[in-house]
Amino acid sequence: MKNIYLLIAYDVSTESSEGRRRLRKIAQTCTNYGQRVQKSIFECLVSETEYTTLKHQLLREIDEAEDSLRIYRLRDHSEKTVQHYGINKPIDYTRPLIL
Amino acid sequence: MKNIYLLIAYDVSTESSEGRRRLRKIAQTCTNYGQRVQKSIFECLVSETEYTTLKHQLLREIDEAEDSLRIYRLRDHSEKTVQHYGINKPIDYTRPLIL
Repeated sequence: MKNIYLLIAYDVSTESSEGRRRLRKIAQTCTNYGQRVQKSIFECLVSETEYTTLKHQLLREIDEAEDSLRIYRLRDHSEKTVQHYGINKPIDYTRPLIL
Repeated sequence: MKNIYLLIAYDVSTESSEGRRRLRKIAQTCTNYGQRVQKSIFECLVSETEYTTLKHQLLREIDEAEDSLRIYRLRDHSEKTVQHYGINKPIDYTRPLIL
């Protein structure tokens, strides 16, 4: 059951081509599980198994000596938990994801 | 009582000098309430009053037509809620803040 709301935030140095490659890979991996809400932030709704797989993939892709990866488990996706202002409208998880 | 854990994430366009000015102001405001954990992400431990004041200040500083501001209320600051990998060691809110 998809019942874990995750916020994934990463800082990857893009000075080297290697860093830029990691950045693309990390973003692609996150895209497979959720939606980009800001440049380096994704929100995902996943099951416990998907959570483990996603984390495993991301840890394979970052360089822990250079990058920062933060994974937050959110209480829910209510307005109280997530408030958004400005561009990039919030994601409505109750509406079907149009693929 | 400081019992609200916030994660503040923002995307501000830095193409214009005006955008760069806003970015500095937003980062400075967040610094007054918490700690930077990634380039555009702060974690803050605040009271309900501080939460209202902080949000009010940030909304005065962003340009809602160009910037994105997301404020997340975290359940707590336990290892289950916040997992960090790579550089920028996590913040230990139980230790006194050395000013």
